[in-house]
Amino acid sequence: MQKIYIAGVGQTPVRENWEKSLKELAGDAALLALEDARLEYPEGIFVGNMMSGSANRHREGFGLESACSSGAAAFRAALMAIASGELSSALVVGVEKMTDSPLAEITSSLATAADADLEGDFGVSFVALNALIMQRYMHEYGWKTSDFAAFSINAHANAVSNPNARFQKAISQVDYARAGMVCEPINLLDASPVSDGAAALYLSAAPPAAGRKISVAASAAATDTISLQHRANPLRLSAAEESARKAYQQAGISPHEISLFEYHDAFSIMAALSLEAAGFCEPGQGPRLANDGSIAVDGVIPVATMGGLKARGHPVGATGLYQLVEVALQLREQAGKTQVKAPRWGMAQNIGGSGSNIITHILHQE
Amino acid sequence: MQKIYIAGVGQTPVRENWEKSLKELAGDAALLALEDARLEYPEGIFVGNMMSGSANRHREGFGLESACSSGAAAFRAALMAIASGELSSALVVGVEKMTDSPLAEITSSLATAADADLEGDFGVSFVALNALIMQRYMHEYGWKTSDFAAFSINAHANAVSNPNARFQKAISQVDYARAGMVCEPINLLDASPVSDGAAALYLSAAPPAAGRKISVAASAAATDTISLQHRANPLRLSAAEESARKAYQQAGISPHEISLFEYHDAFSIMAALSLEAAGFCEPGQGPRLANDGSIAVDGVIPVATMGGLKARGHPVGATGLYQLVEVALQLREQAGKTQVKAPRWGMAQNIGGSGSNIITHILHQE
Repeated sequence: MQKIYIAGVGQTPVRENWEKSLKELAGDAALLALEDARLEYPEGIFVGNMMSGSANRHREGFGLESACSSGAAAFRAALMAIASGELSSALVVGVEKMTDSPLAEITSSLATAADADLEGDFGVSFVALNALIMQRYMHEYGWKTSDFAAFSINAHANAVSNPNARFQKAISQVDYARAGMVCEPINLLDASPVSDGAAALYLSAAPPAAGRKISVAASAAATDTISLQHRANPLRLSAAEESARKAYQQAGISPHEISLFEYHDAFSIMAALSLEAAGFCEPGQGPRLANDGSIAVDGVIPVATMGGLKARGHPVGATGLYQLVEVALQLREQAGKTQVKAPRWGMAQNIGGSGSNIITHILHQE
Repeated sequence: MQKIYIAGVGQTPVRENWEKSLKELAGDAALLALEDARLEYPEGIFVGNMMSGSANRHREGFGLESACSSGAAAFRAALMAIASGELSSALVVGVEKMTDSPLAEITSSLATAADADLEGDFGVSFVALNALIMQRYMHEYGWKTSDFAAFSINAHANAVSNPNARFQKAISQVDYARAGMVCEPINLLDASPVSDGAAALYLSAAPPAAGRKISVAASAAATDTISLQHRANPLRLSAAEESARKAYQQAGISPHEISLFEYHDAFSIMAALSLEAAGFCEPGQGPRLANDGSIAVDGVIPVATMGGLKARGHPVGATGLYQLVEVALQLREQAGKTQVKAPRWGMAQNIGGSGSNIITHILHQE
């Protein structure tokens, strides 16, 4: 694919937002990205939004949905539109408004990320599917629930200095041990919060006139079965493995060259599986990286540098674009207190469903 | 954009389908297209489905939604993916299952095609928006309701010989006059039926080894405001005008070279406005073309040759692909009793919302 540049980024604070409509939130992020790019209006707009059909009743423009990976799917569609020659620039906006819908509606909307015939119709919620995976993972590899605390502690520590984060507050191992159980073994501090937010990126075929050149070095999608029961091994995110492998190949790099990794820590177990699938450790070793400091900002592979899904918040359809905005800010060295040292390559991985639709992007600071 | 070929097409009968799930319907159409193409599995799959979030609770693969133009949006996304070089082949599947959801849920799902803040929240249904347009159109141009019967009579006449049509049955001016009122002035025979169905096309960068070469000569999208109240003139489909103009330009042809036009006759008024927007007559003259025989199979501009949305049925997210399957079959001269004579260029126009998202494609028989 031809080289495409990130000309601008924008994001709204992730929080419960009762003042703005879905459109206003999307508009805020879009205007911030436009302002940041200092360019004319783009030729196309791509919108990632998971719940437009079920909760928000909005539809406008070129809408993409791919469950929780809707944001990255919209980004990838925009890249292909530019690379096809149809457009020379595009604004990609991810937006979600989850907190002003009744909780039962949100739970049922989130369950659309599961297999309707084989999972949803039997009443299994999305957190329950992740709990099944975590339970089995602990059984197979011998980890205890307390071993997962480090993922959440790291995410919250990074969020403290991010003004756009939902929870700008550190947590401790004691907080984790005291957290209420959501769906055993997943507790409240293992789960990312239902949130409102919007993030946007301005993509351009032309390199920026000034400033650092941040380009897209890889865009790779892969799929797996939606239903857990059909997977050869439910403890391996095979779509994440394939999409990361293709991404490294496109960028011409290996995992150890990645300066930071925005992973999809919707639940602590997904953080562990993502690290393993992306090649940062062997299967079953994810919690080790969290506990030995490897995932800290000054560690071997910094993750969730602005708080991740866990502490920055997880407005589903916007999450994939928040991840990419964060990678771009890191590569521009504008990430504040959680700035990684001299980053060259940043990776973001957006997971749809319990691992069915996975999209990996690598950005490059030239 | 590079030349892309239609290597295969598939469609399921449009009807109330209580035996098959959404996935099975989509699978049936996909397998028929694969079989027709006689090629290996394609590299990518693009799915157009409007109600996945709200009614069917399914999500799989690269999902696109753009209200009633979801089918054409998926087709266009697949074209761009191939033209970008990311894929060399793709299967585009449009599927919708509407009849086994409660009617209130379907009405509310269809209302997502309207502006949620300015229309939907005030209780206006999708048919009511079209009724407002038709009322104003009759007032401005002096047509009577009976003048619209010819659109429906033509569609039903064409559907008689289409085994995949929902209503394989001719209707008369008397039937039209006796039809129950749905939302004045729109009666039951002005409105396309809620339906289940799936259609698929196999796209390939390589020309077919044998048989006629059907290629994509144009793909053009345009948008307008979702809400009627914000339009300069609610009786002009400005997005349809712009998208048709761009499509003619891409194909290098003028309207009179179009051999057949699969228009989006969700309601009779939309049929009239589409003919006008695509340049086949002046604004306000659509009903004249229907009444003077111009739109018949042997007329100047044959439309809805296999029954259109009105009589073949309108499974929303699949409709745009049914239209393209029909154009491809016409260009292959496999359209049976409604075959147009020696067609070279066929056009399909898919309308999302009450005219907000419009996508026009032109196929060419080389």
